[in-house]
Amino acid sequence: MFSEEFNKVNVLRKVPVLKDGDFTLEESTAILLYLTRKYNTPSHWYPPDMKKRARVDEYLAWQHTNIRTTASKILWLKVPQEKVQDAMEDLNLSLQKLEEKFLQEKPFIIGNEISLADLVAVVELMQPMGAGCDVLEGRPKLQEWRKRVEVTLGKELFAEAHARILNPQELRSISVDPPLKAQMKPAILKMLK
Amino acid sequence: MFSEEFNKVNVLRKVPVLKDGDFTLEESTAILLYLTRKYNTPSHWYPPDMKKRARVDEYLAWQHTNIRTTASKILWLKVPQEKVQDAMEDLNLSLQKLEEKFLQEKPFIIGNEISLADLVAVVELMQPMGAGCDVLEGRPKLQEWRKRVEVTLGKELFAEAHARILNPQELRSISVDPPLKAQMKPAILKMLK
Repeated sequence: MFSEEFNKVNVLRKVPVLKDGDFTLEESTAILLYLTRKYNTPSHWYPPDMKKRARVDEYLAWQHTNIRTTASKILWLKVPQEKVQDAMEDLNLSLQKLEEKFLQEKPFIIGNEISLADLVAVVELMQPMGAGCDVLEGRPKLQEWRKRVEVTLGKELFAEAHARILNPQELRSISVDPPLKAQMKPAILKMLK
Repeated sequence: MFSEEFNKVNVLRKVPVLKDGDFTLEESTAILLYLTRKYNTPSHWYPPDMKKRARVDEYLAWQHTNIRTTASKILWLKVPQEKVQDAMEDLNLSLQKLEEKFLQEKPFIIGNEISLADLVAVVELMQPMGAGCDVLEGRPKLQEWRKRVEVTLGKELFAEAHARILNPQELRSISVDPPLKAQMKPAILKMLK
């Protein structure tokens, strides 16, 4: 499934991978943090304020075992048909936490400005949406937030970054041509500017 | 299981929780990062060097869905007896990655100095050890590393932080008195000094 060359840089056999000269980095959240430092992106992505920064860290840590697991399970069709219902319930609980604990009444997860937390959250939610599953249905607050993120990033960039995921033709070919997220990375880097 | 007062500060119903005045923070990795910033701990814990810092981030991100999940599953006895074998195999794969990808031939995960990555890794491994399961058996390289971490932190502090986990009497009472990690936090903070 993975080319030999790709496996060389991807010891954990997971996408995405960043390769910067001799330096190879895995784990999407670590890559995003590295990109914000290396390219000195606007500070709202990972604010210097200690408490705001802690809120971004808190979200990034939380999502690993919550939204990230369930949302991608559904997309990658790793869930047997009879367990889709359970996976959807897990995802619903995660969405409820995203709404009630993280977003609350604020425009973005950590307050008035967009941060890495919103970016990571949106990317995960677009995964089940790519599988034709509108996970935000019946959640107007999260829908508004998603639109706000889209507008802030720029609609064109947002569409570009998600084009592959929202295109079911490409989706079907995932198992033969997998480094989907790796291919999305240039667009994500553009977003951070 | 959780007291009402604890639930008030712990919306996600998970331990640990940090409460700093009005500011409440969850997720152990986010808490450790906050503590290093707030108390301006020695820089080796989370080095300013961009690539070293990225390696800490990479480990912290990776462990959420690897060592952390399997090791604590085994400790909290969430695994039905017939699935302990599978859980142990998952843990073994994680330990292999810890050894081959993260530690390699270095004294500590990111190089010559101890960092948050080592601290988080050791704490997770002590969990199954608390349940009487020496997960490092047959892995001399990881055993050496564990000893190195223990010596660097100071044997007394190390023992203090793990006393509750290594005491089976306390272990049995976990389900009635659960904020175990929260109680370990003062000792962990001392370690970071």
